[in-house]
Amino acid sequence: MSATFEPRDPDWEARCLASFEKQPICKTLGIELTGVEPGFCEMRIPFRADLTQQHGFFHAGMVSMLADNAGGYAAYSLMPAGAEVLAVEFKINLMAPAKGDVMVARARVVKSGRTLTVCQIEVAMIDGGVEKDCALMQQTTICLLPT
Amino acid sequence: MSATFEPRDPDWEARCLASFEKQPICKTLGIELTGVEPGFCEMRIPFRADLTQQHGFFHAGMVSMLADNAGGYAAYSLMPAGAEVLAVEFKINLMAPAKGDVMVARARVVKSGRTLTVCQIEVAMIDGGVEKDCALMQQTTICLLPT
Amino acid sequence: MSATFEPRDPDWEARCLASFEKQPICKTLGIELTGVEPGFCEMRIPFRADLTQQHGFFHAGMVSMLADNAGGYAAYSLMPAGAEVLAVEFKINLMAPAKGDVMVARARVVKSGRTLTVCQIEVAMIDGGVEKDCALMQQTTICLLPT
Amino acid sequence: MSATFEPRDPDWEARCLASFEKQPICKTLGIELTGVEPGFCEMRIPFRADLTQQHGFFHAGMVSMLADNAGGYAAYSLMPAGAEVLAVEFKINLMAPAKGDVMVARARVVKSGRTLTVCQIEVAMIDGGVEKDCALMQQTTICLLPT
Repeated sequence: MSATFEPRDPDWEARCLASFEKQPICKTLGIELTGVEPGFCEMRIPFRADLTQQHGFFHAGMVSMLADNAGGYAAYSLMPAGAEVLAVEFKINLMAPAKGDVMVARARVVKSGRTLTVCQIEVAMIDGGVEKDCALMQQTTICLLPT
Repeated sequence: MSATFEPRDPDWEARCLASFEKQPICKTLGIELTGVEPGFCEMRIPFRADLTQQHGFFHAGMVSMLADNAGGYAAYSLMPAGAEVLAVEFKINLMAPAKGDVMVARARVVKSGRTLTVCQIEVAMIDGGVEKDCALMQQTTICLLPT
Repeated sequence: MSATFEPRDPDWEARCLASFEKQPICKTLGIELTGVEPGFCEMRIPFRADLTQQHGFFHAGMVSMLADNAGGYAAYSLMPAGAEVLAVEFKINLMAPAKGDVMVARARVVKSGRTLTVCQIEVAMIDGGVEKDCALMQQTTICLLPT
Repeated sequence: MSATFEPRDPDWEARCLASFEKQPICKTLGIELTGVEPGFCEMRIPFRADLTQQHGFFHAGMVSMLADNAGGYAAYSLMPAGAEVLAVEFKINLMAPAKGDVMVARARVVKSGRTLTVCQIEVAMIDGGVEKDCALMQQTTICLLPT
């Protein structure tokens, strides 16, 4: 289920970057936007010991936060000018501990509707240069247009 | 679908509190454990502007983090001594912006199996003293025992 | 997270019943609409050996079908006249084998938005007169209006 | 997130086919097992007017049933001899109406653990010879071994 998408807004890239800059939580936690294409987004976060659970790995909440955030911008890249994006719901399977140096989330749009967008997001940990699958998310976002 | 549960471990409360203390992320973000009973857990986090998304409300990732965390301890309260709890997967519906002074998540076990536990978690925002529904989660956790 | 809802359409009940009558699959499988209120729906299906999996219980697909169907009508009861309802997504935890004489699904709306509705659906098996929890679903539906 | 898997049971294929034969619901509804490999399963169901919803397309419950069933056998193909497979939970996004001549579900294992298996299942409709994406599922199954 892979597809290529035509952006509805020629300024999609600048719009995505500007929106990302306005998220205080990304600066607070060290989340980086490392790639955005029409229907695709990659985000990364370097390991921080103060964001871990009781076993010293990234907390599951951090995994879902990175995945949800990447999915939101993959969806947003295809929305028209003036739109806002909101996550409606998501589901994540946590398949391995989030152990390593950098966490990376890659989000791909699988359905781009007028109102709703469905994304699939893969999360991996880069540990000593090796990338390992960590989690898989399905996410639904909604496009809000000014009325 | 409500139930009362008998703890398998008489020291369930001390075990839950000790585990919670060992999560660095909770101190970093200001997550508080405000209630734990057999099969139930409540957590809260006061609003912080540096944990918000582009509209100034708590980021969806914060909502899911609080809910997942509360679900984990509701499940853990019923596990036997020596067990570890891991989130297997969860699904969350974000029903209203996380706008307000304090976010509160209340998790209830709906199925306590030998291996898997299912929790339902309600998240609300307390805004000017009024509590409003914010999100709803279903979560599966696994009980890991030393071999 | 319980609420009471005002129907937007005074003819909600007749509209729901008429729509249910138009679903051929319900007749084929023996699904019965046993209750509908604003924001609530109950459906039942008596056990049939030809709808079982390899252990002789209702197939998980039957559990999700009954739950999804009940959720759709709980949502539909609150939609305006002329609307159509479509399931956007759902997630179900299968907590016990669907073993018994009758399966019953009870759906409650937890969020009734203009576009999206969120329902929670509990599924139980009635086995020798005793009702036992079987599954729990969270479902999102969309309201489609003629343009 | 694609992987190749070594079956734990040399008789995986015969075991999967024998289990599928024991599901009465598949005969009742016309579900066909059209492919099974280690960590992969394809199922199909030809259109039947008596399995439709109010708009004349396959009911969403049929979509989730086919996807869940395919996921179960993709997981089962990797389980050891003597194991039973049970669906723990699944989440499905219904992205387009299930309109067409044949529905096909393709399930791939993304994580094969000792206890839990995670599958991703794509559902498409073949309509006049053209295949169109219809739904996407993430599913968790559990491996039960005789004690």
